[in-house]
Amino acid sequence: MEITLNSPLDMHLHLRDGDMLKLTAPLSADFAGAVIMPNLVPPVRTPAAMQEYDARIAAAMGAAAFTRYMTLFFTPQGEQELLAAKNTPGFFGFKLYPAGITTNSEGGISNIAQADTTLRIMEELEIPLLVHGESHGFVMDREQEFLAVYRHLATRYPRLRLSMEHITTAAALQLLDEFPNICATVTLQHLIITLDDVAGGALRPHLFCKPIAKRPEDRDALLQAALSGHPRLMFGSDSAPHPRSRKEACGCAAGVFTGPVALPKLAEIFAAHGALNQLQSFVSDNACRWYGLQPVQKTVTLQDTPMAVPTSYRSYGEQVVPMYAGESIGWSVVR
Amino acid sequence: MEITLNSPLDMHLHLRDGDMLKLTAPLSADFAGAVIMPNLVPPVRTPAAMQEYDARIAAAMGAAAFTRYMTLFFTPQGEQELLAAKNTPGFFGFKLYPAGITTNSEGGISNIAQADTTLRIMEELEIPLLVHGESHGFVMDREQEFLAVYRHLATRYPRLRLSMEHITTAAALQLLDEFPNICATVTLQHLIITLDDVAGGALRPHLFCKPIAKRPEDRDALLQAALSGHPRLMFGSDSAPHPRSRKEACGCAAGVFTGPVALPKLAEIFAAHGALNQLQSFVSDNACRWYGLQPVQKTVTLQDTPMAVPTSYRSYGEQVVPMYAGESIGWSVVR
Repeated sequence: MEITLNSPLDMHLHLRDGDMLKLTAPLSADFAGAVIMPNLVPPVRTPAAMQEYDARIAAAMGAAAFTRYMTLFFTPQGEQELLAAKNTPGFFGFKLYPAGITTNSEGGISNIAQADTTLRIMEELEIPLLVHGESHGFVMDREQEFLAVYRHLATRYPRLRLSMEHITTAAALQLLDEFPNICATVTLQHLIITLDDVAGGALRPHLFCKPIAKRPEDRDALLQAALSGHPRLMFGSDSAPHPRSRKEACGCAAGVFTGPVALPKLAEIFAAHGALNQLQSFVSDNACRWYGLQPVQKTVTLQDTPMAVPTSYRSYGEQVVPMYAGESIGWSVVR
Repeated sequence: MEITLNSPLDMHLHLRDGDMLKLTAPLSADFAGAVIMPNLVPPVRTPAAMQEYDARIAAAMGAAAFTRYMTLFFTPQGEQELLAAKNTPGFFGFKLYPAGITTNSEGGISNIAQADTTLRIMEELEIPLLVHGESHGFVMDREQEFLAVYRHLATRYPRLRLSMEHITTAAALQLLDEFPNICATVTLQHLIITLDDVAGGALRPHLFCKPIAKRPEDRDALLQAALSGHPRLMFGSDSAPHPRSRKEACGCAAGVFTGPVALPKLAEIFAAHGALNQLQSFVSDNACRWYGLQPVQKTVTLQDTPMAVPTSYRSYGEQVVPMYAGESIGWSVVR
C-alpha cells in the first residue's frame, strides 16, 4: 500500500536556531513548507529579524524546495508596522502567546484587550492570528478555560483569520464547529497519546509538551475529526526539539520532537483506520484552501514498509530524541 | 510557637531494604512508629519473611524507640495462614495492591472476588486490610473508579478493618463520610500539591507518585479534612524513596521521599491555618483510637524555627532526594 501526497504542509513548526536549526531543518524537508514559529531567544518581533531568520532557515534547508511561512511574535502595534510586516516577503502571520505560558513566551500578552486596535487592523489587512490558547489555570483545564478568549476573538473580529493552534480537547473541537470563521491545527502526538502516556506509568519526558496531552475522550475526538476530513482542521506538528540534556533532566522542557516521523506515522494511522483518502486534506489541502496558500510543488510518496526511528539525531554538536525513538513505525517515505 | 506531639505515627511508610533501609530508617525516627509497607523485591508474603524484615528494620533504627507495625503483601489464603500471621509478633495487617498498579506490585490482586473467603476470615479475626485503591483506567480517574471496590468491601464485609490508603480525591473523602466502618490515610504531598506541581510547568520527577496528585479542589478538600480533625483520617506519609538515578532518568519511578520533612512541614501547615490543636489527632490519636494501638511512649517537640532541607541524603552508597530538597521549611524538630 502507498500514497502520494501533494505538497504536504506542517502548519506549526519549531526549527529553533543556530546548530539546532541545522539539525532540525533537513529533518522536516519531506514537507513542501511549514509555518515557522517565532519563539527564539529573543523572539522574532520585527520584519528585519524575520527576514534574517528566514535566510538562516533557507541555508539550513540546503537544496530542499521548501516554502517558509514566517511568523512574528505578536505584540500590539499600529497600521504602519502591520503593513510593513504584511509586505515583507515570506510573512505569514502573527503568533500570539499568553505571557509566560510556554517555551520562550515570557514577552507575550497578558490581557487580550491590549490588542484590540491591532486586531482590528489585522482583520482589515487579512493577516492571520495564530494563538497558543492556554490560561494560567490548572494544567488539565488551561485550554478549555481559554476557549472564552477564542469565542471573544471570533465574535468581535468576525473576519480575522484566527487559528487555534495545537488543540488538545474535544471542547476546542466543539468551538471549531460552532464558529465557521476559525480554523485549528492539531499535532501528531495529540492524535495518539493521553496524559497516561506522559505520567500514567513512569514519567516520559519526551512526550511532555504544552498543551499537555489530555483525556482519552479528547484524543479520540481529535483523531476522529482528523480521520473524517474536518475541513478546518490542519496538521501542525508543533515539533519542538530540545537538547537531550534539557529533556531528560529535572525540570524537563516542554516539547515533542516529531518532525522526522510525522508523515510516516500519520500515514500509518490514517491507513489503519481506512482513511488514507483523507490524509491529503489534513496535511495540505485544508490549509491551502483556508489561507489561499501556494507552496512549492512537491510530491512525497509513503508506503507501508517499516521506518526504524533512530534513538536520537545528532549533528553540529546537538542531540535530539524524536518521538518513537528506537522504535519502528509501520510506514516510511519512499526515497 | 511550638507544639509537643505524643507518639506521632506514620501509618504508611516505605523503608525499602538493604543499604536504602539503613539510610531511610533513621530519617523516620522522630516518629514513635509506622505501618511498614511490604512491597520489597520479592514482596513480604510470609510471617517468617516479615519477622526477618522487622529485625532488619530494628537494626537500622539503632537505639531509636520505634514501634514497627508490619504488613504482609495480600494474597488469598486460609484460616490457618491468617491465624499464623495474626499471631506473629509485630504483625499489623495486609496490604492489598491491584496487580501491577505501583512499585513492586506485580503480584497483586486482579479480581477482588478471588479474595472473598480470605476477607471473611480477616473480618472475623479483626485483621486490618490496607488497600492501594486505583483502577487501571485513565490516570486522573483511577482512584475514583476504584471507589466502587471500596464500596463493595465496606458493604460486604461491614466489620472488616478497611483502610483507603493515600487518598487523593474529594470523592474518596465523600466515601469516607458515607461509610463509618472505614478509615483512610493521606500523605503530606497530597495536602499540598496538585498535578500542576508535577507537570504544569516543567516535569518534576521528585513530586511524581502514585496515586498521582490530582486537581486543586481535591487537594483543598483533603487539606480541610485534615485541618478540621476528621476522626477517621490519619497521616500516612507514603514516603517512598528511590535512588536519585531512578528518579531523574527517563521513566522516573513513582514516589515522593517525605520521611525527613513530614513532621516539620505538617506543623508548619497546621500552624499556618490556626489548626495546630488538630495535629495530634491527625498524626497519632485517630490511628490509636481506630486500631487500638499502643506505640512506644515518645514525645516530639516542633517549633517555628526553619529547617534547611538537604539537597539529598547520602549514606551507604545510596543517594535520595527529599521533598523540599535545598529549600527551607518554616518549622523544625527541637533536638
